[in-house]
Amino acid sequence: MATQNITAAILVIGDEILSGRTKDKNIGYIAGYLTNIGVDLKEVRVVPDEEDEIVAAVNALRKRYTYLFTTGGIGPTHDDITADSVAKAFGVALYEDQRIIDLMLQRLKPEDLNEARRRMARIPVGAEHVANPVSKVPGFRLENVIVMAGVPSIMQAMLDDVAPKLTTGARMMSKTIDAMGIPEGGYAAGLADIAKAHASVIIGSYPQFGEGRFHNQIVVRSKEEGPLNAAVVAVEAMLRELSAKQGK
Amino acid sequence: MATQNITAAILVIGDEILSGRTKDKNIGYIAGYLTNIGVDLKEVRVVPDEEDEIVAAVNALRKRYTYLFTTGGIGPTHDDITADSVAKAFGVALYEDQRIIDLMLQRLKPEDLNEARRRMARIPVGAEHVANPVSKVPGFRLENVIVMAGVPSIMQAMLDDVAPKLTTGARMMSKTIDAMGIPEGGYAAGLADIAKAHASVIIGSYPQFGEGRFHNQIVVRSKEEGPLNAAVVAVEAMLRELSAKQGK
Repeated sequence: MATQNITAAILVIGDEILSGRTKDKNIGYIAGYLTNIGVDLKEVRVVPDEEDEIVAAVNALRKRYTYLFTTGGIGPTHDDITADSVAKAFGVALYEDQRIIDLMLQRLKPEDLNEARRRMARIPVGAEHVANPVSKVPGFRLENVIVMAGVPSIMQAMLDDVAPKLTTGARMMSKTIDAMGIPEGGYAAGLADIAKAHASVIIGSYPQFGEGRFHNQIVVRSKEEGPLNAAVVAVEAMLRELSAKQGK
Repeated sequence: MATQNITAAILVIGDEILSGRTKDKNIGYIAGYLTNIGVDLKEVRVVPDEEDEIVAAVNALRKRYTYLFTTGGIGPTHDDITADSVAKAFGVALYEDQRIIDLMLQRLKPEDLNEARRRMARIPVGAEHVANPVSKVPGFRLENVIVMAGVPSIMQAMLDDVAPKLTTGARMMSKTIDAMGIPEGGYAAGLADIAKAHASVIIGSYPQFGEGRFHNQIVVRSKEEGPLNAAVVAVEAMLRELSAKQGK
């Protein structure tokens, strides 16, 4: 039942995230979305609006993972250099795509189609459109790199367009187990033993802190239901035993 | 008036962020914090709980930037491998620090100080503590790498502890200008000209989308007040001119 692992990275392009001015809302959304469709997100990078940085990150990530999703930098202003940078990373030219000009003219008067707006109609040679039902101007996909807007509502619509065309793998399933008030240090040894005995599943312990104490959850993840359930049973049994010892 | 640029990267360590289970709250917080104290955040990476990935990212980022801040992976469970990975990245050993054991015993009975909890007392040779007033067990700093908890309230307290000890540069100032309802494509050409004429400042255009239309803001950033104000005046004059043309 082994299936191919389909992997992905996200590259967030934008000074505004690095300066703290804008809180990113795309990483968490894309992460959950990819997990749901059976694509394993393995890495995220955030880089500034600088061509060399974008080119280097695009080339590092596209070669390593099945897919690379970028967000940001595809508008009409001088700081929007994602299309140029992706074309440079691939060593291909940009061209003005008449189909994008036509889409833009659905929203613009011809006299408003100025040079800056025409920049948004430029895509790398060989790229396909990623539809943008929100504001028309599409993103694009070049080989395994999917270039999307940074505005969350537009990015989300673009992801809906591109997702059905992706190769996906087995979906990662997960089960969250409440740690019954037992501190991490109380169950860490038992959990390590279970992780060793159930090596095909991924087991994580996630503390949250509030009102002066920790509220912990244990998350078991696997692409196969049998091993997942077996590990969950083992974790629950361990927690019950520890809880009984604590006299609860 | 040129001052040294102090730069930083953030490395978020955690499967839970990549799976979408947990939405990261640390990147935006640290980004804003560093900007306020005059440290320029230049890159962020998120990697899974895998030693090779953490070691590679730590070495890439610590060599390139003045500081590297990591979050996550310093608890007592088997998936907490940040201390091990950072020690490996530096090629130094971990040791059990009696001062951390003593701190832990302020909260724990001696019989509860088990093997798993002792793992949290291990820090790399040469590392200094980063105080944790919330739950006692400290983070650590080794040369330019600052290792912090992933739980936001604890991470924030650790950042408060380490920040006064950092070398900081001139603070980046910024001014946000509302684009007066003018679409990006309407002011992009003018803004590009201003960016060219004011090359020492950073000018960005940030669209937001809501209720079927864009609401744009232009942000001007600089470490020097004179150039900042001059660019702001130029942007505001351009917007007024465009607005007048639109007959508003």
